[in-house]
Amino acid sequence: MTEKIKSIASIIEKIEPVDPSWIDKAKERTAQLVMPTRALGRLHNMAERLCAIRKTLRPNLKQKEILIMAGDHGVVAEGVSAYPQEVTPAMVQTFLADGAGISAISKHVGARVTVVDMGIIPELDPAALPHGDRLVIRKIAAGTANLAAGPAMTRDQAKQAVMTGFSLASERIEKGVDIIGTGDMGIGNTTPSSAIGAVITGSDLSVMVGRGTGVDDDGLAVKKAAVEKGIAVNRPEVEDGLDVLSKVGGFEIGGIAGTILAAAFHRRPVMIDGFISTAGALIAHTLCPAVRDYMFAGHRSEEPGHRAMLDHLGLKPILDLGMRLGEGSGGAMAMGIIEGAVRVFTEVMTFEEAAVPDKEA
Amino acid sequence: MTEKIKSIASIIEKIEPVDPSWIDKAKERTAQLVMPTRALGRLHNMAERLCAIRKTLRPNLKQKEILIMAGDHGVVAEGVSAYPQEVTPAMVQTFLADGAGISAISKHVGARVTVVDMGIIPELDPAALPHGDRLVIRKIAAGTANLAAGPAMTRDQAKQAVMTGFSLASERIEKGVDIIGTGDMGIGNTTPSSAIGAVITGSDLSVMVGRGTGVDDDGLAVKKAAVEKGIAVNRPEVEDGLDVLSKVGGFEIGGIAGTILAAAFHRRPVMIDGFISTAGALIAHTLCPAVRDYMFAGHRSEEPGHRAMLDHLGLKPILDLGMRLGEGSGGAMAMGIIEGAVRVFTEVMTFEEAAVPDKEA
Repeated sequence: MTEKIKSIASIIEKIEPVDPSWIDKAKERTAQLVMPTRALGRLHNMAERLCAIRKTLRPNLKQKEILIMAGDHGVVAEGVSAYPQEVTPAMVQTFLADGAGISAISKHVGARVTVVDMGIIPELDPAALPHGDRLVIRKIAAGTANLAAGPAMTRDQAKQAVMTGFSLASERIEKGVDIIGTGDMGIGNTTPSSAIGAVITGSDLSVMVGRGTGVDDDGLAVKKAAVEKGIAVNRPEVEDGLDVLSKVGGFEIGGIAGTILAAAFHRRPVMIDGFISTAGALIAHTLCPAVRDYMFAGHRSEEPGHRAMLDHLGLKPILDLGMRLGEGSGGAMAMGIIEGAVRVFTEVMTFEEAAVPDKEA
Repeated sequence: MTEKIKSIASIIEKIEPVDPSWIDKAKERTAQLVMPTRALGRLHNMAERLCAIRKTLRPNLKQKEILIMAGDHGVVAEGVSAYPQEVTPAMVQTFLADGAGISAISKHVGARVTVVDMGIIPELDPAALPHGDRLVIRKIAAGTANLAAGPAMTRDQAKQAVMTGFSLASERIEKGVDIIGTGDMGIGNTTPSSAIGAVITGSDLSVMVGRGTGVDDDGLAVKKAAVEKGIAVNRPEVEDGLDVLSKVGGFEIGGIAGTILAAAFHRRPVMIDGFISTAGALIAHTLCPAVRDYMFAGHRSEEPGHRAMLDHLGLKPILDLGMRLGEGSGGAMAMGIIEGAVRVFTEVMTFEEAAVPDKEA
């Protein structure tokens, strides 16, 4: 079915907001569960939205997959990152070797991880790497151009990035994945994410530019200047998601936006990780506001600008633990929570089944 | 080893704060993990404190158990609860039948549940109940007396409640349980918990008395009046945990306090659930301030007074999802998070193992 989809426009026209009558049906079931009225708070809301996404009162989240989109960034030439660019491919290999933060967390919650080379600089050969079957090469280019000096990529490349994310996520959903988590890897990628956040939310750079992997005060000033230049030089059109993505974005951010479109298109939940993933969510939301209903915000990142991004999307994070790793780690951890919410919804007895007296009238 | 322990005083004298040098050792390992400095925020802190509790850099949380302490409350005569008292034994049976909120969540995180009759009114026969092996009868009395009219229990009963919780939790730890979660069931039990919270934290009743399972405005006024009377009539001694427990507490709250003492005594982590469990934690902390190092606060309850309780203990909740069910449900959900934190600590490669370049000097 995804075979026929050739353009972003044809994806978007098929995405609809969830049907609120399914939320109502799900709320009726919640009201019967043997506990005080809505005593599990946001766990109920998560499960009910999931029912509406899947149009069922028996949702499940057994098959979980995290798609880590990796890309390099020309803007590192400005000195925006605390780490050298060689870390991008080195971390990709660490994901394959099951040695990263996301590796431990994804195993803990029972999620598969697939890594996508959306545009890192080196050429990695999956056949030559241990667990290379978990690496998919879909390189748009060997890193973006420096966004502080001009567009990070062409508009065609931006489309290609989104369509690549869409098709990879669609394949997985068609094979039975119940929930997709977004993840990212790319030295320098908090810089394009800050730029996207500033353009789309309208927030000030003093809020939107943070320390990323840990730049010092000088590095922070350099990073802020790079974002400022990037926006001034490129003048991205706030209402045109592809324009924003192409001018100040990144290949992996486009892939994340495509992943989100795929989830909404196929009526599956998508768990958004932190700052970079939410930049991808802003792009997807600008392209198609109805994607919002399919997104869950896994956590609030320690990056200060993340709050404004989530507010713009109207999403409340599930976790708030001071995490700022990326890789999909916060979203993966939150998958454990939403799966618990679903188990409460589907497994807890009703007052009647348990023969427990309800509230006194 | 627990056999010799006959008094609360002999427990307390053996409880020591964790050794901060273990936190330092654990921090050294965290610093080597292949990720930006402390990029997983509070997950690192949790794992490090666990290392200090267990005095090892290879902690694990494989065996998890939740002890749900159940008791009835004479104060329901005042009209403080939205639910009839028959709900207490009915919910105990629902726990055994795996039909409650805690049932779904504990299965999800891989925790066993044991239910303890600390003092419910009916006599339940475990041998006659399905899954009766999960019910332990340690009834102190058939419900407490009405705390609004006099002491809820005698000082001897308070000691017995604490020692019962201590010995049951100790047995489990000696059989290999790595983390214990506290849980509660008892119609009316937010009322004694509010009284304990008000006495020990010094907070105003307007903050400390909330809607519990869902009383309306009239019910809330009745509940506040009951707590007010209870404190005025009984004049509990704020520095004497057993006095507070006996005068305005409950049997299950004493059992929870004993569970916490056992965890600290045996150097195991204990996951505190919500409002009622934290009232038990306040009692345990009043008896022995060093227990604090062994406690993790699973979540912030929707009960407004919970915040002041956690502040008093200096604990920051792991989750904040608007939950207010009790049963150990919030703590159980947070067990999934702390187990993820431990897996990050023990499974993630170092920069050296992964051959990833570290931060540029």
